Amino acid sequence: MTYQVQIKVMPLKDLLDPQGKAVLGGLHNLGMSAVGDVRVGKHITLQVEAANEDAAKAIAEEASKKLLANAVMEYFEIEVVK
Amino acid sequence: MTYQVQIKVMPLKDLLDPQGKAVLGGLHNLGMSAVGDVRVGKHITLQVEAANEDAAKAIAEEASKKLLANAVMEYFEIEVVK
Repeated sequence: MTYQVQIKVMPLKDLLDPQGKAVLGGLHNLGMSAVGDVRVGKHITLQVEAANEDAAKAIAEEASKKLLANAVMEYFEIEVVK
Repeated sequence: MTYQVQIKVMPLKDLLDPQGKAVLGGLHNLGMSAVGDVRVGKHITLQVEAANEDAAKAIAEEASKKLLANAVMEYFEIEVVK
């Protein structure tokens, strides 16, 4: 069966996020002062062929560790949609 | 009150996603042939000061339209967490 897997890869909470800071500056320049903090990461959607949901999640986790996320700077969260 | 808003910005479904194709090639080179399709977008987390959840969502929508997403190439989804 084919599962859709959503992976969120974000910069670690303790690290500076220059891209987020730049976006925050841009929003403030546009007059949107209600926004206090911005962090920018990646969102990756995979179509995975697997026997069941757990197997699909395991494949996505392997992909995240090997290629999609850099554990030194980023953490990731996996959600299997269907 | 401060709300955390999650914004997902993805390339439109009808458009090619070269970054996703590159990631797919990388995964196949790593021997992960169970992955069939990959799309890569952005995930943005905002801290928004707003009176209620609807107001927070409206601010995030304005930010997405004005700065975060390019409507010609991308669509976005907003989720208010708390």
